[in-house]
Amino acid sequence: MPEGRAYSSFCPEHLPGQPDAPTSTAMIRINENYLKLKASYLFADIAKRVNAYTTANPDKPLIRLGIGDVTEPLPEVCVTALHSGADELAKRETFKGYGPEQGYAFLREAIAAGDYAARGCAIAADEIFVSDGAKCDCGNIQEIFATEGVKLAIPDPVYPVYVDTNVMAGRTGPNVDGRYAGVTYLECRPDNGYIPAIPEEATDLIYLCFPNNPTGAVATREQLAAWVAYAKANQAIILFDSAYEAFIRDPEIPHSIYEVPGADEVAIEFRSFSKTAGFTGTRCAYAVVPKKLQAQDPSGKVHSVHSMWNRRHTTKFNGVSYPVQKAAAAIYSAEGQAQVKAKTDFYLENAALIREAIAGLGLSCVGGDNAPYIWINTGRDSWEFFDLLLNEAGVVCTPGAGFGKCGEGHVRISAFNSRANVEKALERIKSVLA
Amino acid sequence: MPEGRAYSSFCPEHLPGQPDAPTSTAMIRINENYLKLKASYLFADIAKRVNAYTTANPDKPLIRLGIGDVTEPLPEVCVTALHSGADELAKRETFKGYGPEQGYAFLREAIAAGDYAARGCAIAADEIFVSDGAKCDCGNIQEIFATEGVKLAIPDPVYPVYVDTNVMAGRTGPNVDGRYAGVTYLECRPDNGYIPAIPEEATDLIYLCFPNNPTGAVATREQLAAWVAYAKANQAIILFDSAYEAFIRDPEIPHSIYEVPGADEVAIEFRSFSKTAGFTGTRCAYAVVPKKLQAQDPSGKVHSVHSMWNRRHTTKFNGVSYPVQKAAAAIYSAEGQAQVKAKTDFYLENAALIREAIAGLGLSCVGGDNAPYIWINTGRDSWEFFDLLLNEAGVVCTPGAGFGKCGEGHVRISAFNSRANVEKALERIKSVLA
Repeated sequence: MPEGRAYSSFCPEHLPGQPDAPTSTAMIRINENYLKLKASYLFADIAKRVNAYTTANPDKPLIRLGIGDVTEPLPEVCVTALHSGADELAKRETFKGYGPEQGYAFLREAIAAGDYAARGCAIAADEIFVSDGAKCDCGNIQEIFATEGVKLAIPDPVYPVYVDTNVMAGRTGPNVDGRYAGVTYLECRPDNGYIPAIPEEATDLIYLCFPNNPTGAVATREQLAAWVAYAKANQAIILFDSAYEAFIRDPEIPHSIYEVPGADEVAIEFRSFSKTAGFTGTRCAYAVVPKKLQAQDPSGKVHSVHSMWNRRHTTKFNGVSYPVQKAAAAIYSAEGQAQVKAKTDFYLENAALIREAIAGLGLSCVGGDNAPYIWINTGRDSWEFFDLLLNEAGVVCTPGAGFGKCGEGHVRISAFNSRANVEKALERIKSVLA
Repeated sequence: MPEGRAYSSFCPEHLPGQPDAPTSTAMIRINENYLKLKASYLFADIAKRVNAYTTANPDKPLIRLGIGDVTEPLPEVCVTALHSGADELAKRETFKGYGPEQGYAFLREAIAAGDYAARGCAIAADEIFVSDGAKCDCGNIQEIFATEGVKLAIPDPVYPVYVDTNVMAGRTGPNVDGRYAGVTYLECRPDNGYIPAIPEEATDLIYLCFPNNPTGAVATREQLAAWVAYAKANQAIILFDSAYEAFIRDPEIPHSIYEVPGADEVAIEFRSFSKTAGFTGTRCAYAVVPKKLQAQDPSGKVHSVHSMWNRRHTTKFNGVSYPVQKAAAAIYSAEGQAQVKAKTDFYLENAALIREAIAGLGLSCVGGDNAPYIWINTGRDSWEFFDLLLNEAGVVCTPGAGFGKCGEGHVRISAFNSRANVEKALERIKSVLA
């Protein structure tokens, strides 16, 4: 999740050189749904406060634990595969031009075997659509569904792409007091353990993310089964973002929603190599769209969601870079799996240190055991807590209010950093809060 | 252009296992605009006929001149850059996580200098948005404009992505007799030299592609200036696809629409490394969205198109793979420019052989001098000509009818192949048609 950028751009009030006077009505029209987008200044505000601190304290280096981006190098198997892919592109005999938009069979088959068959999920290779990012997939998937009459259920706090892409498509009303009309917000609060309750009303398109960003909370098999049952009862579709599944260590926690029987009739799953294998700058992900998934047209005729996504994907996307697909496939070897586990173990060791320190300070938190994020219930205003850590400890975190109304009172701390930085940051935090 | 796939997927009549009976109206609804998509069987039909030929003639190897994909290996500077990028990802000190969604400054600045400043076009680096493909950019750009009330002008024959993505977005009516209601088709015919006339009616969003796919025709400076003047007069926006500009050799032909003064007030330009540097499997492209471009909302207030595209790009895209961006930037060195020219020269030499052979047979054609495609006016049904070349000469071309109504009577021949294959194919064609 590339924060500080997803939020930072279009804001209708702040366009440069905008004349106020209406011009000829013949001018080409914008997609006016963009005007509904509530500009978030979260990461701009963080940057402003951080800059003020560093200007005032040039000799006190900050430690950034706000960032949702990996810091460790790419696994060796991936580097080797990138080199080997580049060498193939260098010779006419092995050169690769356009590949299948859906991804090469070698990668789709490795994913089906390694991520699904290995966990007892019957997902076929041709149900897997390789892409250049889960952000793109999560953002694009809504296009194949109707704009009118599709009721959304979206968590709060939340990764903003789910909401913003639906606003842009015109699937919401205006933003009133921080919430878009027409969206059922799935509230993740201390009193429900940050796992949202099943809504009482019917919805059609349900976004879920486990292990969660920003909270780090995970859903049990029973909780996921309840969502699958709800989706079936409502003939709805779940969009399940499991970009952080590689951090799950508890053997009872499902890695995929397809571990719940029947989920392949109601759920699309998004996965990424970004956090699993450090691909945030290398770019590879995939979406699973089972062939059993159905949706209807206004006449009540039923259509294959897989076919619709295939049409969208092949019309608007041209496949992932060949060397990158080779690098992604490399993690499914025994050696690759060991290297990926070593990387995620490293971040989870950071997370354990953070959890321990936070608990020692008497603050409650979730996440960090099966996720790289720790979500701290600060017991005070999230910006006030942010300022305290910044100005007194020289540590940057992310104020929870930036992720939605239910994020207020919380901050997110990320385990993506070097061990030395994490240890130093925790010492400083302890000295301020103890 | 990855033909044989853009066309081949969603077709409402052919979804697997589709029950006809209406189901509960509570089921999630599809985007019903997809039902308007006219399924094209062009490449499926080609494949069927080719398979029939190869089954009947297992000992007669075919030569494929229908494919719009490069065959020569990546330039050496790009291979070196891919290796160097992979090495950087292998070490913590030089590792790259998320980069800017819009592309690294090193690449945006190289593009601004090498592709624009060098031709006298004042395009700033921050007006360039790096992406993973011109297909994606051409397909996504329409999202920032209104669905209702935006009048489209689209060439015929045409690369199908321009039309299909607008159909999916609901910007057209139904397909009647091979054409979508509500679209102004810009006809490219023998009698206008395959350069469409300026429409008599006002339109808002105008797709142009020069050097053209599929015809290979190029537009003069005066012709482009007329389009810019038309767009200004109508407060319209031109979407200018110049993915094949690297094949232009005539010094009088503009490589960019921004060589026309004032075009930066009315035009977005799409470029790709695919054909320029053999990146069809490596994936890198860019869109130029000048800051001067404006569009209005329903109240008549004017908005920056650059800001809107920036919002779309940062919300739904996460940047291009770092080693790939390095490889793209490598072509702007003196060595890189020489290597790119050598590759495009090679294909243009193929094209010259094809033009010469076709002219020698008394057939007229365009393209091939400043483009890798030759568009032959066959004087007969395009499928009949296709079958003749296939069955008598063992050569595969592309029937023009697959690109639109105005493609009837024509075939496209591609110069993307080895010299030996091109020469052999031309000998066979001569022996059949002479």
